[in-house]
Amino acid sequence: MTAPKIALLLTGNELMTGDTVDSNSAMIAERFLDQGLQVAYKATVSDDLDMLTSEIQRLSGQYDVLLMNGGLGPTTDDLTADALAQAMKVSLVEHTDAMAHIKHWCETRNFPLNAPNLKQAILPEGVDILANAIGSAVGFSYELNNCLVMCTPGVPRELDTMLTDAVLPILKQRYPQAGQPKRHRLRVFGMGESGLQRRISETYPDCPPELEIGFRASMPLLELKLKVEQESHYPILDDWHQKMHALLGHHIVTEDSRNIAHVVMDLLIAQGKKITFAESCTGGLIASSMTEISGSSQVFEAGYVTYSNQAKQDMIGVEQNTLETHGAVSEQVVIEMLRGALQNSGADIGVAVSGIAGPNGGTDEKPVGTVWIAWGSQSNLHAKQFYFPAGRHYFQKIVAAMSLDLVRRELLASNETPVYFTERGAKI
Amino acid sequence: MTAPKIALLLTGNELMTGDTVDSNSAMIAERFLDQGLQVAYKATVSDDLDMLTSEIQRLSGQYDVLLMNGGLGPTTDDLTADALAQAMKVSLVEHTDAMAHIKHWCETRNFPLNAPNLKQAILPEGVDILANAIGSAVGFSYELNNCLVMCTPGVPRELDTMLTDAVLPILKQRYPQAGQPKRHRLRVFGMGESGLQRRISETYPDCPPELEIGFRASMPLLELKLKVEQESHYPILDDWHQKMHALLGHHIVTEDSRNIAHVVMDLLIAQGKKITFAESCTGGLIASSMTEISGSSQVFEAGYVTYSNQAKQDMIGVEQNTLETHGAVSEQVVIEMLRGALQNSGADIGVAVSGIAGPNGGTDEKPVGTVWIAWGSQSNLHAKQFYFPAGRHYFQKIVAAMSLDLVRRELLASNETPVYFTERGAKI
Repeated sequence: MTAPKIALLLTGNELMTGDTVDSNSAMIAERFLDQGLQVAYKATVSDDLDMLTSEIQRLSGQYDVLLMNGGLGPTTDDLTADALAQAMKVSLVEHTDAMAHIKHWCETRNFPLNAPNLKQAILPEGVDILANAIGSAVGFSYELNNCLVMCTPGVPRELDTMLTDAVLPILKQRYPQAGQPKRHRLRVFGMGESGLQRRISETYPDCPPELEIGFRASMPLLELKLKVEQESHYPILDDWHQKMHALLGHHIVTEDSRNIAHVVMDLLIAQGKKITFAESCTGGLIASSMTEISGSSQVFEAGYVTYSNQAKQDMIGVEQNTLETHGAVSEQVVIEMLRGALQNSGADIGVAVSGIAGPNGGTDEKPVGTVWIAWGSQSNLHAKQFYFPAGRHYFQKIVAAMSLDLVRRELLASNETPVYFTERGAKI
Repeated sequence: MTAPKIALLLTGNELMTGDTVDSNSAMIAERFLDQGLQVAYKATVSDDLDMLTSEIQRLSGQYDVLLMNGGLGPTTDDLTADALAQAMKVSLVEHTDAMAHIKHWCETRNFPLNAPNLKQAILPEGVDILANAIGSAVGFSYELNNCLVMCTPGVPRELDTMLTDAVLPILKQRYPQAGQPKRHRLRVFGMGESGLQRRISETYPDCPPELEIGFRASMPLLELKLKVEQESHYPILDDWHQKMHALLGHHIVTEDSRNIAHVVMDLLIAQGKKITFAESCTGGLIASSMTEISGSSQVFEAGYVTYSNQAKQDMIGVEQNTLETHGAVSEQVVIEMLRGALQNSGADIGVAVSGIAGPNGGTDEKPVGTVWIAWGSQSNLHAKQFYFPAGRHYFQKIVAAMSLDLVRRELLASNETPVYFTERGAKI
């Protein structure tokens, strides 16, 4: 059996005016690919009945599957049911199952059942229902011109659920041979896409054709995707999975969806340790990236945002003499910052950063992008200079991420030298 | 003259696999709307020559303008020029102006002129060049089937520049009557879309048909857009602009692109004041939202991330007795936090927050979402309880934004009561 030809049809005025950036179709494409199904074509139109109808007719004649998204809501500009009915040349009728769903949905929420809600039960005669576990609008499907047309809600959370509960299982049954793709996602810190690509191809120049290697920037992490399409190729995938671990070592932060701060928090919890941060140029970003994670109060008690020299002295006991002799962006100052923060907070491990985020404040000797990071514990303390001349926003993000990555490696007792030590750590 | 019918055609494998979320078409739609031009249809295809060619043929037969985006790069999967040549039934030839551009582009960057670059000068015979001020790939245009086909680069920054420099001026000349839209964007804090909509329609039930009112969520701000299409309607726009100011008062944070922290920073600079933050549940987010703005070192010196009770005592002198008697999430504690932070930092004004971000830590008396905020100066200090039971991420964002908004109103010496005092400030 050949792979089905699949098209998307998205509807919504907000998609045509620029008010909304469409992230649904990326979600659909990715979920479909996980099941070996490739989206070949995507059309987007505003909430216009004639245009929608003619696109349904045109695309159902050319594709095996047409996934529609949006236009299922309760308002008059939600036209998907009308357009599909026109394309099917049938009437809109009250659908028993849809009505039961909406009544139940309103009842459990203590909402009155009003006319706009009721509209969501009026569907083209003969469609099948696609269950919506969380929203009021059911989805529906119909076989038109030998094409399976499936209509799904535009609310991302509802779409996500309906893909899992209804759309993908139906397609799995219909196209069982589409493929058994398997994928590993390795979340890497400290290498750019081209650097990682070069590193892989230099060590393993012969990538087997069965293996697909992909990259996705997920700043500050880079996602390395390894994928095969068929079960018979799983051993190739596993082999390369091991190869990538051997090649990249602790540059791989995780294979799940956690970020660096989350991984650090989990390591701290497992080791029964507490952390502190003394932040100058990152101005609270490291602390907030830790405290945005639920459970962080187990490992974090106190953070010091010491933006001025005076605050470095008052809050964490940096010596005025050290500041005057070496300047705020110096090895000596970040070491004193970290020692003071560890002592004041009683934490086991910590990070201190001081740098020049820019766009102003740089000098010839210490240009914008220069940063000193100290990390570790009182008995095992390190400091290193890095250089990221890449704009204030990026600078702060990358310094915060790298600070946490250095703590992660410390907690892992890693002996490995991160590539960013040589690529980013050079003295100016 | 009627408005032109405009279609977009986007190309790129990354757009069809979900690896990239398409933000270009929103940019195009918005820039076009500013010139009175509406995009009616959008198709997206992967880098497939036959598909691209057939879409060019189809859409150029139906639309007055076809804007293509992507596929101008130097690699073999960049197929826009090939597809347009096929649709035009002409050959690809070296284009003198394009070659001059690429040579110049490489020279100024000290890049060697290599084969992939040279490919970008090989264009369909007879096209006109659209200048690219920053990238190596020129755009190009051609009149096909009475449709103006314009090909633009997929790199957002290059697209942005080319829209300004070439695409929009050409369309302005071609469709001078398309409209002279004028727009105000009011960035509002403290009201949701439905609340703002209701407030407007209750006070001004008769919105003139010439005026378009739109909303865009830009969390934590809500953008209120007022727009008219023709110069003769500018007085209506100005009238409603004044009405909205009268209605919304200091709920309008700004009409430019600054966020609340930026507005607060500018007010502090103008008044020669310094600010400090004592953060429990926001964990550094308020400090980092201030320090992400260039120039914040003029107004911010020290911030206290006091996540635990011990840190509240050690860092900013909250009394143990106060914590034991009232609990960490209480009026008394945030007031002591703010007084301590103001005293230790020497700042003129500040904010202290303590709340339950969740998902754990709530009680019947103080459920998840409860927060106390104190703001002001030693001589003029306020505190108030709010309630945002909406998930940790949203809770932290909204508490940080509201804290800064309260400071903004204080710096403006505003006597107005924010609507969120009654809607969000009720005791549980």
